[in-house]
Parts: sequence; structure tokens; C-alpha cells
Amino acid sequence: MATPVGVIGLGLMGKPMALNLRKKGFEVVVHSRSRGPVDALVAAGATAVATPADVAAAARIIVTMLPDGPDVRAVIEGEHGIVSAMQPGTVIIDSSTIAPATARDLAARVAERGGAFLDAPVSGGEIGAIDGTLAFMVGGDAAALAQVRHVIAAMGNPEKIVHVGVSGAGQVCKACNQIVLGGTMAVVAEAIALARKSGVDPMKVRAALMGGFAQSRVLDVHGERMITANFVPGFKTKLFSKDLGIALDTLAEAGVPAPTSAVVQQLVQAQMAAGGADDDYSAIASVIFALARL
Amino acid sequence: MATPVGVIGLGLMGKPMALNLRKKGFEVVVHSRSRGPVDALVAAGATAVATPADVAAAARIIVTMLPDGPDVRAVIEGEHGIVSAMQPGTVIIDSSTIAPATARDLAARVAERGGAFLDAPVSGGEIGAIDGTLAFMVGGDAAALAQVRHVIAAMGNPEKIVHVGVSGAGQVCKACNQIVLGGTMAVVAEAIALARKSGVDPMKVRAALMGGFAQSRVLDVHGERMITANFVPGFKTKLFSKDLGIALDTLAEAGVPAPTSAVVQQLVQAQMAAGGADDDYSAIASVIFALARL
Amino acid sequence: MATPVGVIGLGLMGKPMALNLRKKGFEVVVHSRSRGPVDALVAAGATAVATPADVAAAARIIVTMLPDGPDVRAVIEGEHGIVSAMQPGTVIIDSSTIAPATARDLAARVAERGGAFLDAPVSGGEIGAIDGTLAFMVGGDAAALAQVRHVIAAMGNPEKIVHVGVSGAGQVCKACNQIVLGGTMAVVAEAIALARKSGVDPMKVRAALMGGFAQSRVLDVHGERMITANFVPGFKTKLFSKDLGIALDTLAEAGVPAPTSAVVQQLVQAQMAAGGADDDYSAIASVIFALARL
Amino acid sequence: MATPVGVIGLGLMGKPMALNLRKKGFEVVVHSRSRGPVDALVAAGATAVATPADVAAAARIIVTMLPDGPDVRAVIEGEHGIVSAMQPGTVIIDSSTIAPATARDLAARVAERGGAFLDAPVSGGEIGAIDGTLAFMVGGDAAALAQVRHVIAAMGNPEKIVHVGVSGAGQVCKACNQIVLGGTMAVVAEAIALARKSGVDPMKVRAALMGGFAQSRVLDVHGERMITANFVPGFKTKLFSKDLGIALDTLAEAGVPAPTSAVVQQLVQAQMAAGGADDDYSAIASVIFALARL
Repeated sequence: MATPVGVIGLGLMGKPMALNLRKKGFEVVVHSRSRGPVDALVAAGATAVATPADVAAAARIIVTMLPDGPDVRAVIEGEHGIVSAMQPGTVIIDSSTIAPATARDLAARVAERGGAFLDAPVSGGEIGAIDGTLAFMVGGDAAALAQVRHVIAAMGNPEKIVHVGVSGAGQVCKACNQIVLGGTMAVVAEAIALARKSGVDPMKVRAALMGGFAQSRVLDVHGERMITANFVPGFKTKLFSKDLGIALDTLAEAGVPAPTSAVVQQLVQAQMAAGGADDDYSAIASVIFALARL
Repeated sequence: MATPVGVIGLGLMGKPMALNLRKKGFEVVVHSRSRGPVDALVAAGATAVATPADVAAAARIIVTMLPDGPDVRAVIEGEHGIVSAMQPGTVIIDSSTIAPATARDLAARVAERGGAFLDAPVSGGEIGAIDGTLAFMVGGDAAALAQVRHVIAAMGNPEKIVHVGVSGAGQVCKACNQIVLGGTMAVVAEAIALARKSGVDPMKVRAALMGGFAQSRVLDVHGERMITANFVPGFKTKLFSKDLGIALDTLAEAGVPAPTSAVVQQLVQAQMAAGGADDDYSAIASVIFALARL
Repeated sequence: MATPVGVIGLGLMGKPMALNLRKKGFEVVVHSRSRGPVDALVAAGATAVATPADVAAAARIIVTMLPDGPDVRAVIEGEHGIVSAMQPGTVIIDSSTIAPATARDLAARVAERGGAFLDAPVSGGEIGAIDGTLAFMVGGDAAALAQVRHVIAAMGNPEKIVHVGVSGAGQVCKACNQIVLGGTMAVVAEAIALARKSGVDPMKVRAALMGGFAQSRVLDVHGERMITANFVPGFKTKLFSKDLGIALDTLAEAGVPAPTSAVVQQLVQAQMAAGGADDDYSAIASVIFALARL
Repeated sequence: MATPVGVIGLGLMGKPMALNLRKKGFEVVVHSRSRGPVDALVAAGATAVATPADVAAAARIIVTMLPDGPDVRAVIEGEHGIVSAMQPGTVIIDSSTIAPATARDLAARVAERGGAFLDAPVSGGEIGAIDGTLAFMVGGDAAALAQVRHVIAAMGNPEKIVHVGVSGAGQVCKACNQIVLGGTMAVVAEAIALARKSGVDPMKVRAALMGGFAQSRVLDVHGERMITANFVPGFKTKLFSKDLGIALDTLAEAGVPAPTSAVVQQLVQAQMAAGGADDDYSAIASVIFALARL
């Protein structure tokens, strides 16, 4: 009999991830602050408990999916937190996007208590969470990962579970991901604005560029969104802004000057200032379009 | 019997393009300033002539592949230039990367004389020119393009001949291509620097990112070059610097503020200032690495 | 008889500020973590106590001069902090550079206990602290400021005590100060690099610019430092880096995109990465000089 | 009897400069394309002639004040240009803002014909031209400058004639001036936006900053314009945009990466794109204000 899997945090991402675990036959114990998703999981056969400590008492594999570092810290080492009730050998899979330093710190704390903490942020967004096609970038102990790989595989694409390195490496990898995404997005927007303001059909430009070295999934997917001004998320600007904030802080702490990413972050903040926090993150294009009076 | 095709400019790109025309059985008439490539073409069965006007007298389809706008202008309308000897119905295929405004201007000039001028810049680099896999982004008259499509197809990938729009549209598209390339390159470099300085294997980060939305050919091809510090060109920094200069001027004339691309251009200039003009253009990574003391 | 003045934090700035209070005849009660400065103050006639609470028990006017927000928070509301022992009517003058939000927060906390908290960051650096010529930018209650103006005047230039607005306004003003300083520094560096690399004497350029609209104290004072490569602090890069971090965070929270300052911050981080944390902050010029191979 | 002084170009700057020469008693010979200013000068006692060559035939000291490099080149070496009729020993004082390379080039050309060409761009704007308080940054032969210093002094502040170096040095100095002006302007705008959006009176912030190291004439003069949204020129954005374009080109040719100035240029271009070409150049603040939704 498989041991139950705990899931803490049933937001836009955590809820479908937990549902996928149920669908694949796992016994699931959940905790979340919002009533609605908890009820949905219970309806799907999961057990709801009152605190992270209760989850830790019931499950030796625990997935956490929370908004930011302080939330993860509270769930791990706060009052009624996981470490207060954790069984030896417990593996925590933290899929939140948080600072690498916080991940390293929490991993040390959990290790002291005889458990393992894997930083395992994802890419693929809400759709990937629902479809179970998420990619996982994992940092931490290889043996612990081996032990929980089947659980991660149930929430994502088994081919796309990359063990990047020691604790924190998963979050470093996620920061790299957001840096590349943001910058690509920004220059795709600048190129589309140029095409449009020059009277050239941006769809044809996109098609031409897709055939050469300028090809990217951002040009393909988000380029089309920008051209058609379809900014229904997808992934919200405010979440991307938070992630990019972590990425820039991580760059600064690592001593990596990043002038391009710094400018990209300001464009994201302009989109936030313009009231677009809930638009898809490809909407940073609308900042460039506004500057160009398009 | 097919009419001969003229080729003016037998540099790194023009020479293999002309050779491919010969291989596909075209009669080729060439003119170039440097003796070596002319001899190579003559050895391959081409005819060499003394001036662009001589090319125009012999051929009704003329390919030009030159360093910059003033060179194209001189070849078209200078002393002993094409228009001085051009036959009615001549189609000029200009594969140089030049300012869209210059392309539009020359197209008007050639049209006055009863010919057609297509701006048809390429992507794919020297390797694409040798292998005959270049992509062409074409601006100008659709009928003229129809007339010379078989010639273009002999120099590149027939599937990748995109008619983007009216005169100048091909060059606008090329500017868009270089904008997207440059920015993607810059943020891939910033991400690799972050991984490396954080003690995370950048090859694993690259692998993880290739599976998600941050995927791009730049991450794949140039990312590997950056990680292995293999900056043998490929495409030289000094040529990319020239192209990016055209792109930034085009953005300014079109009234498109482009803060991200402006910063990228400064990184390219730093690579130039560091003596790296002849390195592959992915070497802008070495500017970020130097700033990060990697 | 004047009531004693408390001073908490006797670093590079706090120590000379406290000494100036002694020189002007104030009875001074000090607390600091480092033994050396405490001894120096005791030698100058001050009384040393063991905790911030002890300072609060002895003095109704308290100056705090600490590295960052968390330090101020600890001194105010931590264990043995000021509020644990504060007398009603106490006025705290916090001359540290911290986030405006933290200042507002602490002001509310102190007000609950019947005291007043003024955010009163300074400009003028170590030399200004020693000479007693600091400028103070004050946020908070006007009546509280009136009550302690003579104390502030003893540490700085009485003509340069500006009451900017309500709580937090002093720190907003300091953030503005660092934003303007940083950006001016960066472009002065770019201009000097241009002069030098063009073979033009930068001292003559500086002289010419000082006579027109490009005049600034940065061009005068820090421009000379840059030209002569005299980076003995002054004000250390690491402190400026911290201040600029606060400024960028404040811009982001306020919803003000600041692309210029974002780039300046990356130059400061490059100077940090290059091992120049203890150089004068005008040493960001050496980043530009390195990029230009000067 | 003093020899006559020629003035070519009677625009916003050239007209009042020529009038000041008349007021100081110089005999003045003028040429300009626009009828109005020529009539005004004739009414003031100047002589009008038909071509630059006619000016050169009449005067051995010639002031040129033209929009851009190509205009100066045409007036010097074009058909009916100065060199076609120039007397040996003629000194040309070019007060236009043009590329240093063009200035060096024209100086060599004029020297071949036995004359001297001084690059002598100004700062002080239209008001300085009218009041005769312009500052001159002069590049070129010291003896030639000595010969015409009294003429320059009649158009500006005699204390502010700085001989910066050899040919081109004056234009390099002017580029430095515009670089420093633009960057200071941008960060002053970012600071004012922060103050305003934080609910802090920007006039008080400006007053506080003027007392410290952040002091500058830009903060004083243009800061007030930004705060009061008074964008009546002064100096038009479109002219500053042209000057900054020259500055960025000069930086690129000299091999000086300038990430800060590159971003500033994009803000100026955003102000141009927003239809503000005729606003005072301090109106780049309105770009920041728009991004911040102020």
C-alpha cells in the first residue's frame, strides 16, 4: 500500500496538482487556507486536515505550493509547522518559486530533523498543472528525489524532471528560466512594435523569424498573444513580477550584473503600474506599444 | 535556355551563394572587388566582368550581397552602376542587410528605369550560405518575386522564402530578427552567468529550460557556445554590431522606444571595445561574464 | 538643565554625531555593539549603558544611526528595545537610511506608546558627520521636530534641516537623493570615458561643463575623483549599493518604473562584483572605464 | 578698421548671435536660407549675400550655426561653399553641434586651403544666444582661437570660452555635455515621480536635495519645470534628440559602452513618439510620469 501524499497550498497551481495525484490513485492529505479548493479535494476523495503539522503527522511525502518564501517558511518551521510533527525520512517537495537562499536554509533545517527538502519549482503554468504536463527543476539530495520521483511524475511530464544540483539549484534554475523568458518577451515586443509601426504585418514577421535563429517558444506562443492583444492569462503579470523580483535579487546576491534583465523588470513594473497585474505576462508588450503610441 | 544570373559581391556570403547557383546549373556572371573569390567562381564556370554595369548588360536577374547601404547604393546608382546599363524588366535581389529606408529609396530608383528591386536579406549565416539552407525575408513587388523565386530557391531553403510585404518590409523583418536574436542572447548570457556563479551546472540549466517556455534556438545553439566558451564564428560580432546599429536606427525612425535593445547594443559595443570584433556574436556573453568576474 | 540625549549606534556616522552632541554641551547616553567607539564616547564624558531599553530609561530624546531597517526595528521593538522602557513624550530621531514603509511602521508603533518617531536620514557622509555639517531630511510630526530641532542642529547644518512631510517622507527624500546621485555619477563617468578615449583632457571638459547646465556637485567633486582615480572613501560603494537597493524597492512599491536607475544599480553591482565594495561610490566609473578598456 | 565678420545660418541661435555682433560694433555679412532673419539683420545694418562663397569673399572670420553635420559640410565644401572662395588666413568658427569626426574632417579640408576651422559648439540655449551669455567649447588651433577670441566674446560670456583641445575636441566636449544633461534629467524625473507618487511634495524634496551632493543646475532649473509641468522651450526635445544621437554615435565610434545614456536616449525617443518634439527637453519627465500613471 502506498503511503499517503500531503499537499499544502491549494491555489491555482496546487489544486490541480493535488487532483492529479488523486487521479493517479494516491491517497492525498491536504491543508489550505481557502475553503473552496479544500472542499473540491475532499469531494475527490482526499482527506483535509487543520494544520501543516497534521499533514506531517499523516504523510511522509509532502508537496508544498505556496505564493512566496515567507509562506513556505511559515509552513515548514512556523507554529504548527511541518517540522514540529515530521516523521524521520519525510521528503518535502517544495514547488513554490522562492529565493534559492531560503530553499538552502529550509533544506538545512529539515535535514537537522532527519528529513529532506527538495526545491522543485515548475514551469508550464496553470494549464500544465491541470494537464499534468509540468516540468520540474529539482535541487537537493539525489536519493530523496529517487524516492519521490513517482509522485512528481504524477503531477507532470516524467521526461521533464531535471535534477539540476544540490539544494537551491532548482530555484536558481527557475530564476534563470524567468530571466530568459522576460528578456525574450521584451525584445519580441520591441520587434512586433517595429513591424507594426513600419506598416509590416507582424504575423508575417513572426512566421519568417520562426524559421531561423530567432525562433523561440515565446515568439511562437506569446508573440501571437501580443499581436492579437490577447492578454487573458496564462500566467499573471503580478506573479511574473514577483518571480522576476526573486531573480534580480538572486543575481545581485550572486554578484552577476544583469543590465538587460534590470530593464525588463522595469517594463514589467510599468505594466503593473498601468493596472495590468492580472493580465497575462506577455502584456509587457502593451508597455512598449504605449511608448510607441501604437 | 535560362538567362544568366548576375552576382555582385563575393564575400563570405556572396561567394557560396554564387557557387550554389552554378551547382544548380545557372549561367552566372560575377563582379567583385576581391580577386580570389572571382577566380574561384571563374574556375566553377562563371564569367567575370569589370563593373556592375557590365553585369546589368549581361543578366536580367541580379543578386547583390554587400556589406552596407552605401555599398549597395554605389553598385546600383553609382558610376558604372546597374541602372546605367540595366535592361527593362531586370529584377535585382538585394540580400545585403541595409536600412529599410535605403531599400525603399533604391526600389523607387530602379522602378523609374523599368526594373524591380527586391530587398531580400537572409538569415542562416555563412553555413546556411554554403549549405544552401538560407531563409529569405523578401520585400517588394510580388510579381517580381514570382519571376525570380527559382533563383532564390537555388541559394536557400525553398520553404523559407517569406514575402513579408512591400519594399523595405524585408529589411524591417531582418531588423526584427536581429533585435530578437540580440536580446535573447543577452538574457541567456545573464542566466548562464547566474547558474555558474551560483555553482549550478549551466548545461543542466540549459537542458531544463529547453523543455519549457524559455526554449529558443539561441539557448540551444548559442547557449552551448557560451557555456563552452566556443566563440569561433559563426557570425562575427562586428557584423552583428552593424546590423544592430541599423535596427536601432530603424526603431528610432519608426518612433519605437526600445530600452531593452538599446542596452543589448551597449553590450555588443563592449564586446567590440574588448577587441572581440571577430568573435562569434554569442561572445557578448563574455561581457556579462567579465562584469560578473567569471 | 537639559535632559540627556541618547545615541544608539556608534559606527562611522554615529560616533562623530554623538561626539558633536558632547561638544555642544549635551549630556549623552550611548549604546553600541562595538567597544571601541563606546570607550571613545565615555572618554568624552558620555555615559554608556547596556541596552536600548537602558537608553530609553535615561533619555527622552534618542538618536539612532544603524546600518539597515532590521537593525532599527530590533533596537525599537526587539527584546530590551526602546519601546519596552520608553517614557511618554520621547522623541526618536532615526538617522539611518531605511525603507520608507519601515519608517512609517515604526512611527505608528512608537506613537501607540505615546512617543514620536522621526525619520531623519542625512546627507553629507562621514566628513559631514565629523564637521557637523550634515543635512537632515525629516519626516514625521512637526511638533516633535520642533521639540528636537536644537539637538539635530548640534549634529548638522541648522540651515539644512528640511521638514519634508509626514512619516516616511524623510526616507522617500533620501531615496530620491540616492537616485539622483547615482544617475548623475553614471553619466559623468560615461562622459569622462568618452573624453579620455577621444584623446581630450577630461579636466578641461569638466571645467567647460561646470560653466553650463550640466553643472553638478557630482561633476565637481566626484568627477575629479574619477579623473584622478582617487577612490578612497568618502562613502563606500557597499553602503551606496544598500541605499540604492532601498531606493529601487521603494520605486517598485510606489509603482514608478525607473529604467535609468535600474541600469545604474547594475553598474554599482558590477563594482561590487569587481571587489570594490570598500571603494568610494564614485568608483562605479571604473566599471565604465573597464568596459571601454581604459 | 575691423574686418567684417561673416555669419552663415540665421536660425533660432544664429540670428541673435549675429545681432549681438552688430551691437558690439562689428561689420556683419550674412547668408541664410530663410528670408525673415536676413531682413532683420539687414535692418540692423548687416549686409546680405547670396552664397557662402560670397561670405567668404567678404569676410576672413566666419561664424557658422547650422542644424547638423551635412549642412555644415555643404556650406564649407559644397557648390558655392566657403572653400571655393576663401581667402588665406580665414578662420571659421563653427558653433553647430555636429559629429567630432566631421569637425576633424572639415578642419583638415580648410587647413589644406590655408585657413583654420574651429569647432566651437555652445551651451546656454536660445536665451544665452539672445543675452550674449553663451559658453563656448572650442577645439582646434590655439593661434586661430587667439585671433578670433574677441569675436566669440561678443556672442557669449568671455569667461566661458574654454579651449578644450585639438580639432574635434569642442564637439567631444559638447557630446559630454549632452550626455551629462540627459542622464541628470532622467534621474531627476525618476526622483520627482517617486516623491509625487509617495505623496511627498516634490518641491520640498528638490529643496532638500539642492543642499547636498545631489545638487545640480538640472535639478534646480529643469526640476522646477518638471514639477510645474512647464515644458515651454527652452531647448526643444527634437534638437536634444539630435544632439544625443550624435553623442551616442560618438560613444560607439570611440568604443565607450554607455548603458545609462542608451536608456536615456530611449526615453527621449519616447517623448518624440508621444508628439512632444517641440516641448522643452525637460519633458522627458512626462515619459516617466506616464509610465508611473501620474
